[in-house]
Amino acid sequence: MRLHEAFFEDYQTGDQRVTSGRTMTEADIVLHAGHTGDLYPHHMDEVWCRTQPFGRRMAHGTLVLSIAVGMTAADINPRAMSYGYDRVRFVRPVFIGDTICTTATIRELREEPRRPKHGVVVEAIEVRNQEQQTVLVCDHLYLVEKRSGLA
Amino acid sequence: MRLHEAFFEDYQTGDQRVTSGRTMTEADIVLHAGHTGDLYPHHMDEVWCRTQPFGRRMAHGTLVLSIAVGMTAADINPRAMSYGYDRVRFVRPVFIGDTICTTATIRELREEPRRPKHGVVVEAIEVRNQEQQTVLVCDHLYLVEKRSGLA
Amino acid sequence: MRLHEAFFEDYQTGDQRVTSGRTMTEADIVLHAGHTGDLYPHHMDEVWCRTQPFGRRMAHGTLVLSIAVGMTAADINPRAMSYGYDRVRFVRPVFIGDTICTTATIRELREEPRRPKHGVVVEAIEVRNQEQQTVLVCDHLYLVEKRSGLA
Amino acid sequence: MRLHEAFFEDYQTGDQRVTSGRTMTEADIVLHAGHTGDLYPHHMDEVWCRTQPFGRRMAHGTLVLSIAVGMTAADINPRAMSYGYDRVRFVRPVFIGDTICTTATIRELREEPRRPKHGVVVEAIEVRNQEQQTVLVCDHLYLVEKRSGLA
Amino acid sequence: MRLHEAFFEDYQTGDQRVTSGRTMTEADIVLHAGHTGDLYPHHMDEVWCRTQPFGRRMAHGTLVLSIAVGMTAADINPRAMSYGYDRVRFVRPVFIGDTICTTATIRELREEPRRPKHGVVVEAIEVRNQEQQTVLVCDHLYLVEKRSGLA
Amino acid sequence: MRLHEAFFEDYQTGDQRVTSGRTMTEADIVLHAGHTGDLYPHHMDEVWCRTQPFGRRMAHGTLVLSIAVGMTAADINPRAMSYGYDRVRFVRPVFIGDTICTTATIRELREEPRRPKHGVVVEAIEVRNQEQQTVLVCDHLYLVEKRSGLA
Repeated sequence: MRLHEAFFEDYQTGDQRVTSGRTMTEADIVLHAGHTGDLYPHHMDEVWCRTQPFGRRMAHGTLVLSIAVGMTAADINPRAMSYGYDRVRFVRPVFIGDTICTTATIRELREEPRRPKHGVVVEAIEVRNQEQQTVLVCDHLYLVEKRSGLA
Repeated sequence: MRLHEAFFEDYQTGDQRVTSGRTMTEADIVLHAGHTGDLYPHHMDEVWCRTQPFGRRMAHGTLVLSIAVGMTAADINPRAMSYGYDRVRFVRPVFIGDTICTTATIRELREEPRRPKHGVVVEAIEVRNQEQQTVLVCDHLYLVEKRSGLA
Repeated sequence: MRLHEAFFEDYQTGDQRVTSGRTMTEADIVLHAGHTGDLYPHHMDEVWCRTQPFGRRMAHGTLVLSIAVGMTAADINPRAMSYGYDRVRFVRPVFIGDTICTTATIRELREEPRRPKHGVVVEAIEVRNQEQQTVLVCDHLYLVEKRSGLA
Repeated sequence: MRLHEAFFEDYQTGDQRVTSGRTMTEADIVLHAGHTGDLYPHHMDEVWCRTQPFGRRMAHGTLVLSIAVGMTAADINPRAMSYGYDRVRFVRPVFIGDTICTTATIRELREEPRRPKHGVVVEAIEVRNQEQQTVLVCDHLYLVEKRSGLA
Repeated sequence: MRLHEAFFEDYQTGDQRVTSGRTMTEADIVLHAGHTGDLYPHHMDEVWCRTQPFGRRMAHGTLVLSIAVGMTAADINPRAMSYGYDRVRFVRPVFIGDTICTTATIRELREEPRRPKHGVVVEAIEVRNQEQQTVLVCDHLYLVEKRSGLA
Repeated sequence: MRLHEAFFEDYQTGDQRVTSGRTMTEADIVLHAGHTGDLYPHHMDEVWCRTQPFGRRMAHGTLVLSIAVGMTAADINPRAMSYGYDRVRFVRPVFIGDTICTTATIRELREEPRRPKHGVVVEAIEVRNQEQQTVLVCDHLYLVEKRSGLA
C-alpha cells in the first residue's frame, strides 16, 4: 500500500480500475459468519441448502460487499474517506468456489452543500463472477477534500 | 436461532426491535482488515492515527455495517432473503472500545413490480454507540414471499 | 439475540428445542486447533488419518461441544448462567462435511442446597449428524435465580 | 509435538503434569464467540457487563474448557483417544487479562465393561488463575488400548 | 492491488520504498500462535513474561517477518516469485502496541547460473518500530524472468 | 508443552527430531493472506492460477515457514531464544491438500564473539511433502545461554 494524495479536483468521471480476482472459500463464510454472528442455515447448513432453490451454501451479502470493496483498496489517499453506499443490490448469489473481481468506475463528482470544503466522489462498483455475471452492484461514496478548501 | 416463517403479509410498518450491545474490539478490526485486505493506516497504524483529526484507529465502514446487521439476525425466516441496502451512511466513526447496538424498524412495505409473488420489506437500521450517538444508518431491503403468491 | 427473562420457576421439565443445522468445515478444525493449541494429527494430518481406523480428519471433542452448545444460544436470560456439564460423551466422530444439529430438552429441575436463592436447570443435549446418528450427548447445567429468592 | 505410545497398563494413578500459563485475551473471546455463535452480552458487551455483579466481560465456559484442555496436549499417544468429560464445573469466571494454567492428574484407571480391549483413564483437570484460585475443574476421560488386548 | 509487469532488466539497484505503519496487536499474536502452534509462554503468558528480562509478551519472529514482508506486497508482478530469505535477524523484540514499518531497498541484481532465463533480485528489508529502532533485517530474494529469456 | 531447560553445552550436533504431519488447507491460506495482507492472486485467485504454470493456488512462503517452524515447537527451553534464519529457500510450492512434516537436525554449535555468555545453535530445517519431496529448507539460529556463563 502506498500513499497517493489526491484532492476532489483530481478525480475524473469515467476513470476505471479492475481488481485481480479472489476465490470465495468455505473459510471466508465461516469467518464472516462468526465475525457477524449471522449463522443462518443459508450459509452454514449444507444439508438444508440442498433442499432450497439455490442448492448450495451461499456467501453473506455483507461478506461479498466487504471483500469486493476491500479488493479496491489500493493507494492510500489521506484526503478521502469512505462516506457510505447507495443502492447496494445482491444481484446473484456467490457460492463457495466462485471467483469474483471488482470493477470500480468514477461515476459522478458532486457538491455536498453542507460541507463546502469537500466534494463527494461516487464510485460505481460492479462485482462479477468467473462467468462474467454481475453478482453485486453499488455506489461507493467518498468524501474528499477540495484543494480549493485548504486555508 | 429458531425458524419463524413469515410472509410479506405478516410484516407491519412500525414494528421495531433493539439488539443487545457489542463492544468493538481491536481484534475485530484486525480480523476484518485481514478478511477484506483493507489494511489502511486508518485502521492499522495507531501512530499515524494520532496525527489525524480523529486521533485513534477506527473501525472499517464495512465492519460496522456487517456487525450491526449481523446483530439483527434472530429468527430464521425461510420466506425472506436479503436483497440489498439503500443510503448506507457512516455518520460518526466507531473506535476500539465503543459499544454499539442496533435498532431495526420496519419502515415500508412495497410492491416489486417485476416480482409479483414477492414484496419488499424495508427495515430502517440505526446503529448507536454507548453515548446514544448515531454512528450508522441504512435501509435494509428484504425480498419476502407473499402468501397470496403460493400456488 | 433477544432478552427474555425467565426465573427457575418458569422452566418446565420436558420442554424441548431443536436448532438448525451446521456443517462442520475444515476451517472450523483449523481454527479450533489454533485456538486451543491441540494440533494432534487426528485433526491436522490427512495422510496419517488415512492409515487409521477412522480414515479421515475428525473434529476435536471440545470443538463439537463448543459449536453444539453455541447453537443452543438463543434468547438471553439475564437470570441464568452456565454452571457446568455432566457426562459429556463423544459417541461418534464428526468428520469434515458432516452437518450436525442439537436437540436440547429440559431434563430436570433441582435444588442447589448451598444456593437457596437459585435452582439448577439440567438441559439434556443431544447432537446428531445428517444420518440422524447421535455424535455427542451431555447435560448442560444452568444456575437460575428463583423468583421467590428476590428480596 | 512428539509421538509417545502408551498403553492402558502404562498409566499410573497420581501422575501429574502442570502446563505453562496462558493469558486470556479479548481476541480469544471474540474468536470463540464467532466460532460458536454465542455472542451473549456477558462476553461481548462491556457496557452491559459493567451493570452486572461480575462487572466485566467474561470468557465462555466452553472457551475456558477448550483452552485448558488444549494446554494439556503434549505427546501424541496413538493408543488413546478422548472419550468425554465428567463433572465440568465453572467455579469462578475468567476475565480478560487473567492468566490460567492447568494441572492434570491421573485420578483413576478403570475397566470399561463393554470394551474389554480398552481401559478408561480418568485425568482430573484443575485450572487456576494467576491468584491460584480454581476457575474450572473436570474429569477428562480417555479410552486407551490395553497391551493385553493386542492380538 | 494492481498488475505491474516487470522483468529482471527493469529492476534498479538502490530503488527504495517505505510502507505505511502497522501496530502489532495482542490479536495478531493470538492468531499467529494458533496458526503455527507456537504457544510458547514468551507470546502467551503475561505473568511469566513479567518475570523475564524482556518483561512483556513479544511477537513471534515468524509473525514479525510475515507481517513485515506482507506490508511490502503492492503491485503484482507476474514475472517474479519469492525465492527465499537470507540472513533473517531478529534484532530487537516487537511488543504489543509497537508500530512497525518496512523499508525495502533493491540491494543487488545477480545471475542465477542454473536458471539462465531468470535473475535474482535481492531486496534488503529493514523493519523499524515507532522509535526508529531496527527490529528485523533480512534479504528477500525474488526469482524474476529476464526479458531476454523470452523465446 | 513442557519446560525443559537446556544450556548451550547440552546440545549435540546431529541430534534430530521429526514432527508429525500437517495438511495445508485453504483455510490456512485465507488466514495467512488476511494476517499479512498478501492477497496476491497466486494464493487467492483459483481462476488465474489455472492459467499459470503451477496451475493451482499455492501457500505463501512465509506461511510454509511459519507452520513448519511452529511444528518444531515442543519443549520450552527458557535458556534459548530464536535469533534468526539463514538460507531460507522455497524449493517447491506447497498446494492446498499437501501434507508437510519437518525434520530438524542440530547442524552446528558455534561461538558468538559479541556474546561470550551465549552460543549459537544452528538447527537445519527440512520440510517435505507427502511424496517426500523437499519443499523448504533453512537454518534456524537459536541464541542459547552457556552454563559456564552463569555467575
